Amino acid sequence: MSYATDTVVIVGLGLIGGSLARALRQSGFSRHFIGCGHREPSLRRGVELGVIDEYTLDLDAAVDRADIVVICTPTLTAAQMLGQILPRLNGRPGGPVITDVASVKGSLRDAAIAIAGAVPPQLVLGHPIAGSEHSGVEASDVNLFVDHRVILTPEASNDPAAVALVRAMWESTGADVLDMTVERHDAVLAATSHLPHLLAYALVDALSSSDASDDIFRCAAGGFRDFTRIASSDPTMWRDIALANRSALLDAIDLFSDHLGRLRTAVQAGDGEELSDTFSRAKRARDQFAALLAQRSQPKIP
Amino acid sequence: MSYATDTVVIVGLGLIGGSLARALRQSGFSRHFIGCGHREPSLRRGVELGVIDEYTLDLDAAVDRADIVVICTPTLTAAQMLGQILPRLNGRPGGPVITDVASVKGSLRDAAIAIAGAVPPQLVLGHPIAGSEHSGVEASDVNLFVDHRVILTPEASNDPAAVALVRAMWESTGADVLDMTVERHDAVLAATSHLPHLLAYALVDALSSSDASDDIFRCAAGGFRDFTRIASSDPTMWRDIALANRSALLDAIDLFSDHLGRLRTAVQAGDGEELSDTFSRAKRARDQFAALLAQRSQPKIP
Repeated sequence: MSYATDTVVIVGLGLIGGSLARALRQSGFSRHFIGCGHREPSLRRGVELGVIDEYTLDLDAAVDRADIVVICTPTLTAAQMLGQILPRLNGRPGGPVITDVASVKGSLRDAAIAIAGAVPPQLVLGHPIAGSEHSGVEASDVNLFVDHRVILTPEASNDPAAVALVRAMWESTGADVLDMTVERHDAVLAATSHLPHLLAYALVDALSSSDASDDIFRCAAGGFRDFTRIASSDPTMWRDIALANRSALLDAIDLFSDHLGRLRTAVQAGDGEELSDTFSRAKRARDQFAALLAQRSQPKIP
Repeated sequence: MSYATDTVVIVGLGLIGGSLARALRQSGFSRHFIGCGHREPSLRRGVELGVIDEYTLDLDAAVDRADIVVICTPTLTAAQMLGQILPRLNGRPGGPVITDVASVKGSLRDAAIAIAGAVPPQLVLGHPIAGSEHSGVEASDVNLFVDHRVILTPEASNDPAAVALVRAMWESTGADVLDMTVERHDAVLAATSHLPHLLAYALVDALSSSDASDDIFRCAAGGFRDFTRIASSDPTMWRDIALANRSALLDAIDLFSDHLGRLRTAVQAGDGEELSDTFSRAKRARDQFAALLAQRSQPKIP
């Protein structure tokens, strides 16, 4: 078997890192998988499950053996990891390609520039739009990325070969890889993910503070359950994302608040036409989106 | 077989009316079902499907033959139906019990008072918290109300026997019947249903107006699909609900906006502790709610 690359180091072996290792092993993209992190039980479990071949708690040693390092830790930790990894690469031509999976790209690019003066040629930032309500290596899934989007945010300073390798890596998992600027990525993720999480948290928090909260939760049904599902997400992870994507998230909140304010004005004024127009426009956009998503998840004709 | 009551008239034979007729027939609560409305094809289909026994376009004739009239039209139409039905009951002791299924109770009570001077003894307002993404009598389901909440909002002027009959009717469908004041019902529904719909419509409308909207909908995934599902709801129905429940909805919007504003301030200030506290509190409340909902939908031990 001929591999695209030999050794992949997964830093942070959770759902995403574990699923990526499984997928790359199955696709034959790489031969050898090393897990690295500070939670030894997860890493040991990864070896037991056959997700990785070995593990180490020593990041420097892992990086020295890697062809690709994929930082799969939460957003803020990823910046710390760069702080340890990038200085080690200086002046090492032929060193590993570094990539990541964090939900915010601007904060990591800022971190890279602060550490290395510029985005190094072999650091290619990326973000798979995939997840699960489950977490941890136990929940890892070889098909997690199939037909999901992966956004890469290549920089002018990047080595094109490094970008091509990261793209090929994700394509081998069955993902659909797109390029965007860092700014566009962070705005798009603020809109589709970070803002909805904030809205769901704000709604549940508002209702649980209401003096009718007992009746509210007693009478809420399936629609409310779907709408608030993301308020059951990990608070620490979402705190970090909100802080890391502050500027784009503030813009998204303001855009949303402006539209909510217009609806409030229409409700107060009893302006049925404005309500009807807005609801109809939103329904059309949402129906189109749902059709698009359904189409994407159709099995592809070979 | 002995029936609790003989003839039920369903005014507006859609998903809710059709499902109610099916459930009452199966439970043996009533013997005879008459559909009434202005869309003859739906009514004819109801007869073909065995949901109703016969239909008429003549509301007066239907009411004259009814033991119970259930108004299953949308919120604003329900008020018009009361305008035709209530004057007909005046001075008819032993006339039918009238109830409804509308999502807003205050506007219907106001309509009843405007028409009849007070809520008549035999008018018992109610609201089953059940639905489906499908609509129409074709989608009607004998089990739609099983383990779902039905809220009744009885008034001091109500005949206790009428309230008991409406309660027994819903209980025979397998629903869990609660009593609330009109004000409490409208506040609870604004919080759990009307506000979330407005938020989903506002979000989708805001994002589709963004100059990144192509990338936004191209990259949104399952979480966004769940969060925005209710923005695919019927715009006319939701316009009517927003107008009918104006006051409680404005209160709910303001409560929500206050909490969203606090989160915005925390994001802007980089206040991780405030974000973390709020997200954790919301997650606890949402997890409790999800557990409660899962428990409610467990099969009951006989």
